[in-house]
Amino acid sequence: MIKIDWEKQGGLLPAVVQDYKSDEVLMLAYVNEEALRLTLETGYAHYWSRSRNQLWKKGETSGHLQRIEQVRLDCDGDTLLYIVHQTGPACHTGEKSCFFTLLDSAKGE
Amino acid sequence: MIKIDWEKQGGLLPAVVQDYKSDEVLMLAYVNEEALRLTLETGYAHYWSRSRNQLWKKGETSGHLQRIEQVRLDCDGDTLLYIVHQTGPACHTGEKSCFFTLLDSAKGE
Repeated sequence: MIKIDWEKQGGLLPAVVQDYKSDEVLMLAYVNEEALRLTLETGYAHYWSRSRNQLWKKGETSGHLQRIEQVRLDCDGDTLLYIVHQTGPACHTGEKSCFFTLLDSAKGE
Repeated sequence: MIKIDWEKQGGLLPAVVQDYKSDEVLMLAYVNEEALRLTLETGYAHYWSRSRNQLWKKGETSGHLQRIEQVRLDCDGDTLLYIVHQTGPACHTGEKSCFFTLLDSAKGE
């Protein structure tokens, strides 16, 4: 069984957030133990805001909640994947996903 | 235009890696400026290994290369999304994706 490695990154794990229906990658945010516990207990995505230094329930003020379908852990226990039912846009800009900026396309062979 | 914020996280950005065909989230790894430059120039995913402290072309020894379809940047310029054509499994365990461990499922309403 893979154990969560809270130590490696100062008590914070990055959580990749993916839309359950569209499979789109919506955002990435950070999670501490308390945020993960609340996410698993309530079934709604919680994070740790590094800029505001506080727990944060996604959508608490905007209404753009993320209902959890699955929480997955990666092979070395230092990254989470939240698969969610997203209400409204995930990004604070109003875009569906935070990754709306294309840096580069199709540079491979 | 969104600029990459290299300073925020000590010169490293997390890169979410998604499969172009299946939309599956395959892994998360870290990228410094040089790794991103090589990724964009060669069209193959490069990372910075935090454990080995060195640049790393994914698949260089295993053959499990990641040909880049798109590189995307998030709204606050501190996370990348690589959309790739994955050769073989992405995970060193032989699993297709590193996120093969389910922590929790369907705890929402």
